[in-house]
Amino acid sequence: MKTDYQRPIDWRQGRVDLNHGAGGRAAAQLVDELFARAFDNEWLRQGDDGAALPAPPPGHRLVMATDGHVISPLFFPGGDIGGLAVHGTVNDVAMLGATPLYLAASFILEEGFALAELKTIVESMAAAAREAGVAIVTGDTKVVERGKGDGVFITTTGVGALPPGRAIGGANARPGDVVLLSGTIGEHGVAVLSQRESLEFETRIVSDTAALNGLVAAMLAAVPEGAVRTLRDPTRGGVATTLNEIARQSGVGLHLDEAAIPMQAQVAAACELLGLDPLYVANEGKLLAVAASEHAEALLAAMRAHPRGRDAAIIGRVVADERRFVQMTTRLGGRRIVDWLSGEQLPRIC
Amino acid sequence: MKTDYQRPIDWRQGRVDLNHGAGGRAAAQLVDELFARAFDNEWLRQGDDGAALPAPPPGHRLVMATDGHVISPLFFPGGDIGGLAVHGTVNDVAMLGATPLYLAASFILEEGFALAELKTIVESMAAAAREAGVAIVTGDTKVVERGKGDGVFITTTGVGALPPGRAIGGANARPGDVVLLSGTIGEHGVAVLSQRESLEFETRIVSDTAALNGLVAAMLAAVPEGAVRTLRDPTRGGVATTLNEIARQSGVGLHLDEAAIPMQAQVAAACELLGLDPLYVANEGKLLAVAASEHAEALLAAMRAHPRGRDAAIIGRVVADERRFVQMTTRLGGRRIVDWLSGEQLPRIC
Repeated sequence: MKTDYQRPIDWRQGRVDLNHGAGGRAAAQLVDELFARAFDNEWLRQGDDGAALPAPPPGHRLVMATDGHVISPLFFPGGDIGGLAVHGTVNDVAMLGATPLYLAASFILEEGFALAELKTIVESMAAAAREAGVAIVTGDTKVVERGKGDGVFITTTGVGALPPGRAIGGANARPGDVVLLSGTIGEHGVAVLSQRESLEFETRIVSDTAALNGLVAAMLAAVPEGAVRTLRDPTRGGVATTLNEIARQSGVGLHLDEAAIPMQAQVAAACELLGLDPLYVANEGKLLAVAASEHAEALLAAMRAHPRGRDAAIIGRVVADERRFVQMTTRLGGRRIVDWLSGEQLPRIC
Repeated sequence: MKTDYQRPIDWRQGRVDLNHGAGGRAAAQLVDELFARAFDNEWLRQGDDGAALPAPPPGHRLVMATDGHVISPLFFPGGDIGGLAVHGTVNDVAMLGATPLYLAASFILEEGFALAELKTIVESMAAAAREAGVAIVTGDTKVVERGKGDGVFITTTGVGALPPGRAIGGANARPGDVVLLSGTIGEHGVAVLSQRESLEFETRIVSDTAALNGLVAAMLAAVPEGAVRTLRDPTRGGVATTLNEIARQSGVGLHLDEAAIPMQAQVAAACELLGLDPLYVANEGKLLAVAASEHAEALLAAMRAHPRGRDAAIIGRVVADERRFVQMTTRLGGRRIVDWLSGEQLPRIC
C-alpha cells in the first residue's frame, strides 16, 4: 500500500497547502503518514472512501450523532480540539444509553496551518479514541484558502449500539423524577475563555473535557432498565440550556436547588470576575441525568464510585408544569426562573 | 415541542449571527423552523443530540463514510452545496456495495451568511435525500465569526447496510478484470470552474451531481456476487487519480483506451480552453467499476439501461504490474503514463 512520495513531509516547518485537500499525491501522503498512522485500525486500513464494519449485536439498534468542532483557541488548558472532537461525539452517543463503537472524522483545514499543530491535534484525537474504546474508521480532509477558515475545524460522527428495550431521551422525564449532575460545572468554558482573553487566575482552571461512556455504563449497570429516563451533557449553553431543552421535550417543569449544584470555588470566582452565570457556561465532561426517584440514591452512589462522577449530586426534581419552566431555589432562599440563554454568551466554545 | 420564540426568523433579509450557534433560543429556533421542518422524519423528531435507529437487517454489516464539503461557489450550474453534500456521501456508501440508510449533517456557518441562501441549500439537501431514499437523522450547527469561514461548510456522514458476503473495495481488482465507467467525464469540475471564473460557453455545461445508489443496485442485481470487484466515484482528482488509487490498493497495473472514455464535446473544448486534462477533473455523478471480464457485458448492459449509466463504456483492463502504473493508449495510438495528480488543479471543487 505504500507509495514512494517525492519528498518527506516537513513536520517542523511545514504548512498545509491547497494540494493537501486536492485528492492527489500530497493528500494521499498526508493520509498515509498522519491520519492512517495515528488512527490505525483494520477498518481504516481498508483504504476505501468508507469503511465496512461489524454491525451491533443482534437485537441492538444503532445510535448516530454528529458534532462540528470550531473551538477557538485550538489549544486550551486541559485539552485541544482533537480530544474535544472525540469526547463531544462519544458523549452524544453515550447520552442515549448506547455503547459508542465507531467514529468518522472530517477535517477542514486552512491553508497555511502548521503541520506540527495538526499532528499534535490528530495524535490527541487518537489518544482520546483509544481511551474511550472507539475506533476512528473513516475520514476526509479538505483545505480552504487562507482567510476562509480558521486553522482546523473537525466534524466527528459517532455510531453506537443501543441494547434492546433501552429508552433514554430528553422526552422521558416525568413529574416526581429527580435530576442528578455528575460533577462541578463551568470548567470548560472558563478555561477556554481565560486562555482566549489571556487571563491568569491564581489557580489554573482546566477544561473537564472527557469521554463519559464509562460513567454511563457504570450508571446503567447500577439500576434497573427504565430507571434512567434522560441523560444529556450540558455543553454549549450549559446546565441551564440543557435543562430547558429537557423541560421542553418532556413537557414538564424542573425545580433546582442552587446550593446543591457542585462548583469549584475558583470557577465561581472567575465567573463573577468575568460576569458569567456559571449555569450557562459549557461543560465537556459532565452529564445531567433524570431518574426515577426510588433509584436515585443507588444511581448517585454508582456515579460517585466512578472517577468521572466523584462530585455527583442530586440537584433538583421534575414537577408537573405546563409552562415547562426551569426554576431554582437560590442560596438565599428565593426562587428564580432559569430561562433559555437569549443573548450571546461564549461563541466557539466547542 | 414548540416553543414561543420572541420573533419570527426573517427569511428574506436575515443573516446568520453568532447566536445561531450558541446553543440557546436562537439556535433552537433555527433547528425547529429550518432543519427539522426540511428534513422531517421520525428519528430527527426525537429531538435528542443523536438518533436511535433501526439496525441493518440481520447478517448485514455497517458501512460508514464521511465527507466535508467546502465547494466554492456554493451555487453552480446544475446544483448547490446542499445536494452535493448528500450525493457525495450517499455515493461513498454505495461504492462499497451497501444500501445507504441514514445521513448525519454538520453545518459550519459564517456569521453574516444570508438565511435565504441557507434555506435554499437545506431544502436542496432535503430533496436530494428524498430522491436517494435516505433520511437525515441528526445534525449540528456551529457559527464562526465573519472572515473565519466561507458562507457554509457541510460535513455529511452516511451509514448503510452491507449484505452478507459482499466484498467490493479498491483492493480487489485482479489482472484480467475490465474497467467500466458509467458516463461522460469532467462536467462537474468544468461547470464549477466556469461559474467561478464567470466564463460563458456556447452550450451551458452543468454539473453531473447525482446519487448513484440506484445505479449500483441495478448493477449488482445484474451479475453474480463477486463479479464486481471495485466501485469508486472519481470525484476530486478525477478518473486518473481514482484509477491510481485502485492500482495502488490492488497492487496491479491498469491499461486504458483513451478513445473509449466518454466525454461531451463541449467539456473537451472547455478543458482545452482552460488548460485542464479532463482525466483529472472532478465528477460527482459517475462511477468507475472493476469487474470480472466474463460478466463485463452483462454489467455494461445493466448500466446502460439505467438513467445514470446511459453512456457507460468499457474503458480499460487490469494487468499484472508491480509498478502499479496506470497507462493509456492515446487516440493517436501512442501510450502514456497517467500519473497521480501532483500539482494543484482545482481547489474547493467539492
